[in-house]
This record gives sequence, structure tokens and C-alpha cells, in this order.
Amino acid sequence: MRVGGVPYRTIWLADDGACVEIIDQTRLPHEFAIRRLERLEDAAEAIRSMRVRGAPLIGAAAAYGLCLALRDDASDESLARAREALLATRPTAVNLRWALDRMREALADLPAPARVEAAYARAAALCDEDVATCRAIGEHGARLLEQAFARDAGTRGGEVLNVLTHCNAGWLATVDWGTALAPIYLAHDRGLPLHVWVDETRPRNQGASLTAWELREHGVPHTVIADNAGGHLMQQGRVDLCITGSDRTTARGDVCNKIGTYLKALAARDSQIPFYVALPISTVDWTLSDGLREIPIEERHADEVGRISGRDADGNLVEVSILPDGSPAANPAFDVTPARLVTGLVTERGVCEASAEGLRALCPERQAAP
Amino acid sequence: MRVGGVPYRTIWLADDGACVEIIDQTRLPHEFAIRRLERLEDAAEAIRSMRVRGAPLIGAAAAYGLCLALRDDASDESLARAREALLATRPTAVNLRWALDRMREALADLPAPARVEAAYARAAALCDEDVATCRAIGEHGARLLEQAFARDAGTRGGEVLNVLTHCNAGWLATVDWGTALAPIYLAHDRGLPLHVWVDETRPRNQGASLTAWELREHGVPHTVIADNAGGHLMQQGRVDLCITGSDRTTARGDVCNKIGTYLKALAARDSQIPFYVALPISTVDWTLSDGLREIPIEERHADEVGRISGRDADGNLVEVSILPDGSPAANPAFDVTPARLVTGLVTERGVCEASAEGLRALCPERQAAP
Repeated sequence: MRVGGVPYRTIWLADDGACVEIIDQTRLPHEFAIRRLERLEDAAEAIRSMRVRGAPLIGAAAAYGLCLALRDDASDESLARAREALLATRPTAVNLRWALDRMREALADLPAPARVEAAYARAAALCDEDVATCRAIGEHGARLLEQAFARDAGTRGGEVLNVLTHCNAGWLATVDWGTALAPIYLAHDRGLPLHVWVDETRPRNQGASLTAWELREHGVPHTVIADNAGGHLMQQGRVDLCITGSDRTTARGDVCNKIGTYLKALAARDSQIPFYVALPISTVDWTLSDGLREIPIEERHADEVGRISGRDADGNLVEVSILPDGSPAANPAFDVTPARLVTGLVTERGVCEASAEGLRALCPERQAAP
Repeated sequence: MRVGGVPYRTIWLADDGACVEIIDQTRLPHEFAIRRLERLEDAAEAIRSMRVRGAPLIGAAAAYGLCLALRDDASDESLARAREALLATRPTAVNLRWALDRMREALADLPAPARVEAAYARAAALCDEDVATCRAIGEHGARLLEQAFARDAGTRGGEVLNVLTHCNAGWLATVDWGTALAPIYLAHDRGLPLHVWVDETRPRNQGASLTAWELREHGVPHTVIADNAGGHLMQQGRVDLCITGSDRTTARGDVCNKIGTYLKALAARDSQIPFYVALPISTVDWTLSDGLREIPIEERHADEVGRISGRDADGNLVEVSILPDGSPAANPAFDVTPARLVTGLVTERGVCEASAEGLRALCPERQAAP
């Protein structure tokens, strides 16, 4: 998508055809910084430190991390070591393993000298596939937005469609387009008048930092709100539709996503507002059924709750403490929204009910978990 | 309650018997600062700037503000002018008007020379009444906590009762004891093993700044969480009971409280966890019935969402911006939790159902709104 009018992806091959460049998302929204990854460890660090984040982008960064490792050493041992190092960076992201499995399939049977070129080709293809997937999610989702606008036009006076989103499932979370935001970008570009309520998404503030920045750069009208405000706005009829991404979805449609997603799904249900989840099929974990019991929730460091960074009056990025000394904090990073609260799953293959039947109908090649 | 072992109230008469002193709550949790109010305008500024906040404490501060005005000029005009100035400081707080009405009743018929002494006596009585009210709320609520502990002891192994609260309805919001936290202090002091999940309560972070500070000073085990986390903790069985305060309650039991309260009530209902609201009867607005339609919600400045203050690495209090330049923010300060989601109202007269019948049974002298 566009940054200051210039088209960007979130990850790309550098001019030398070997190094990889990324947008350093930890600097946003205050600074647009590009970071060069030269070695495996640079890629692992970028994932671990959330310079790149979002399930699809983590997968792409891991694929390129493998390329960087093979450039140094293309042996079987190097391939296995790089895979382990990358898998250890983020425990919850199912796309990380998925992308590394695709890379291994493409490389394992090749002789070591042929691997480097094949790895770069496969990583580039993974990125292009992700762009195509997100674009397809966008097409299916944009249709939902257009239908919602047409359906509610009478009651709302038809001025604008108000969409609420949580966290960042935009192009910064993927290679391009995004998942939850892809329908918004497409519908906006086609002239649908819409406005996005952006949950700031504590504790890491990805909504305030990334989603708001993306939407501003692309010119989509939006308003940032505290995570606490969404329920009230829904009660007051100021939200027409919710759409979020997913870090992991079970075979029966339970959705694991950024902490707080579940609260918005409850509020949407209480006010009879559609609650959609946009995801690439690769995010479905077919081995899981009951998300509440089966998905382990990453507990991140308490400092993410107790410290916050921003720009001070002089324009410097500073971190401040917001808790009393000695008050502990807890930081579960994700929650699970039960399928019963999800109106539909928006995938690259179309929209389906959040259920084992719905997912099976879209993916007949899969044997869903019992 | 205690601060560093020393008992305090939130507002008291200074040594000179005329000025008033308060804890400046805008400096917490990083600094314990006492501020002296010498004139009406000091009191109005303290309420407006939220140096004192919380419905009951706002009422007490307004009562003393009237005393300070009468000290300068005890005429009818001065009384009326002071009343108007104080009423204008915070539009939502029903206790503000309530306290000023009590003061007017005590003073209007007195000759001007007798008013100053009577005003101070009435303000002191209002404070003492508030302490007694909160203490009574605490007694009724502590019984609920003890019952919940006894009831769930088998399933939980009986180690500890986990209570979740939102915003600050502690002693800092009242003259002493608090509303939602009064039961917690009493039960804790009597030896009930409990632990409090403290919602940080964006955008003003009263949970992280005030509730956590109060609980730490009094030695109550607690953990601060992002507002997003409560639903997940309830799903996982890590919350036994929720209790919040209320800024305004309708005659049929709809509860207007800090933005985000409604989301926690939805989550509690979804996980079958009791959700109690603690309030002095003076917080009931008997003229209102349907809270969602009838309670105007204060929209506060967007900077409260976009800026946050904390302590930097050098220990200085600094304010930082957390939004992209040019991204707007919205800041509704309260929401309404419908009575159907409230397990019970905990008042100084006892616990009742959140309904017109429940409130009428506690307050037979009142004719509830139709």
C-alpha cells in the first residue's frame, strides 16, 4: 500500500539481491524507518522484537531468514538449525511453522549448492502468494461491506459505513493489503464511504500505532478510541460492522486473536452487529477443535503493560512507567472468541460460517479435527 | 485508609480551620502530594482538573468549595454564584448537585453572618456521612465476598478469591473506604484471602494509577491488567466475582460508570460470574429510567486518548504522544450497563436486585420513575 504516496510492501529484497529490507514497525507511528536484514540472526531478532509482526508477515520474514542462513551455509545442519532458531522466536504464530514447512518442502531434496537460489525463489513466491491471498480476502470482504452499506442505507441515511477493528490486521501485518483491512482498502478505493473505529489495542497499542498510521497514509477516514469505548459505540448504533484478523483459528471456527477481541465480539452480539474475522486459510490450525481449552495463550512480559512509549514535547521517542512501583501486572497476549460469536470467516476462498461445516465446505481437501 | 502506614482521608480541614486540604490525585501513583484549597476557585479547579474525582468525593469537595466562597462573602448572591460555578465543573456527576442541594438547604434560611460556621459544620457532616455510607456498603459487600469464597471454596481449592474491578471506586473516589473497594478492604482486614485484578482503565488509567496505588498502600494483593484482558481471565476461570462503582444509576437499575464497564459486565454474564455494582443511594437518579436512552455521556478531550503521562528513566513525570499526527481520537468517558447484566446493587442499605422493584424495596420513601 502507499506511504506518502509511494507504494511499499512490508518486506522486500534489497538492491543487492541478497539482503532483505523491512519496515521497522517498532518505530511507527512516529518514524518511518527501513531496516536491513543481512543474516539469519537479524531476521530472528526482527520477529522476536516485533519489528515485523502479524501472522502472514512473520511467515514471510521467517522464509527470508532461512534464505539468509543458507547464504552463509547451505548444509542440512544449517537448514535444520535455522528452522529451529526461527521457530523459537514467537510461540503462538502458526504461520511461522507453516512458512518454514513450505520452505523445507522446496529445499530438503535439493543438493546444497542449488538451495540458495531455490530458497530465494520460494520466499519470493510465498510473498506473492500472500499478496494474492490478502487481495482475495479483500475482494470477498469488500462485497460484505458493500452489502452492509446497501442494507443499512435506509436506516442510517446512507452517509457512511462505520466499521470497528481491533489491533492491526492491515497491510503491515502481511506482505501487502492486510487481512481485516484489505476489504476496507478495496471498498474505500472503489468509492464506498466508510469510517473506521480503531481500537488502540493495549498493551502494545498496535491499533493506535499501526492501524491508524496505515489508514492515515492511505487516506481512509478513521478515529482512534480506547479499547473500552467500542461497546458503548455499538450500543449507540455508531458501529455497523466489526472485522478483525486472527492469529490462529480452530477447525470448528474458534478464533484466537489479540487480547480484547472477545470483548468486542460479545458487544457486537449484544447489539446485533455483524462480527467478521478475516484470515488466510493457512491460519487455520486443523489439529485443534475447542479453542478455549486447546490454544495455549502466550503470556508476555509485564513491562508491556507497565511501560509505554511515545513522543515527548521535543519529538524524542521516550518510554515512561505508568504503574506504582511494586504493583505487578499480567499480560496475556491473546484471547479466544468462540465460534458462536463470529458471524462469518472471510477467507481467500470466500466467506463461510464459523463452524466445522463452514470451514470444511471451503476446504474439502481437509479432514477437519473431530 | 492508610498511606505508608498513616491514616488519611481524601479531603480534610487544614490546621487553620478554614482552608481545605486534598490529596492531589493527578500526581498519583508517582508522587503523594497534598494540595491546599484556599478559595472557591481552587476547589472548582480541583474538581475540573480531576485532582479530586469520584462521585462522593466531588460532592464533598463542592461542599467545602461553598464554605470557601462564603468565607469571602456570605451573601445570597455569593451563595448562588458559588453554586453555579461548582455545578459547571463536571456535567455528569449527580452527587455534585446532590451535595450542593444539601448545603443550600442548611444555609439558605440563615442570616449571612451565621452561614460560614454552619457551612463548615454541614460540609464536615457530609464527609462523615459519606464515610459511614461507604463503611456500610463495605459491610454488605464483604458479606457477599465471604459467601462467594465459601461457595466456591470446593471448586477452587479455596486458596484465594479473585475479584475484578474497573476504574477507581476506592477510598480515593470517596472521603474514605470507597464504594467498590470498601468490601475488599473490610474482607481483607478480616482475613479473607483475596486478590484483585485491576483494569488499568484507559484512557485516564485510574485503575493503574489510583486503584493499584491504594491497594499497594493498604497491602491488598493485586495485579494490573490491560482492559482487554478481563474477558479472557473470566473465560479461564480466573475471576470469581466483579465489582465496580457507579457514577449514576437509574431508578430501574441501569448503571452509568466509567467507559468499559459494560464490556466487563458482558464478559461476566458470558462466563456466569457475578457482577456487582457498589453505590451510595445518593448516586441513584430517580428521574431516569432507561439509562441507554436517557443518560447523556460526557465526551472528553481527545488528548486523553492521544497523550499519556508517566515517569521517565530519570524519574520525571512526562507526557508523551502515542498517536500518529493527524489521526483523530474520540473519548466517550462513560458507558451504561443495562440492569439485566448486573447481579446486584450493593448499597449502604443492603444489597438489592438491579431493578425498579429492587431499588424501591430498599428505598420505600422514593417514588421510582415510571
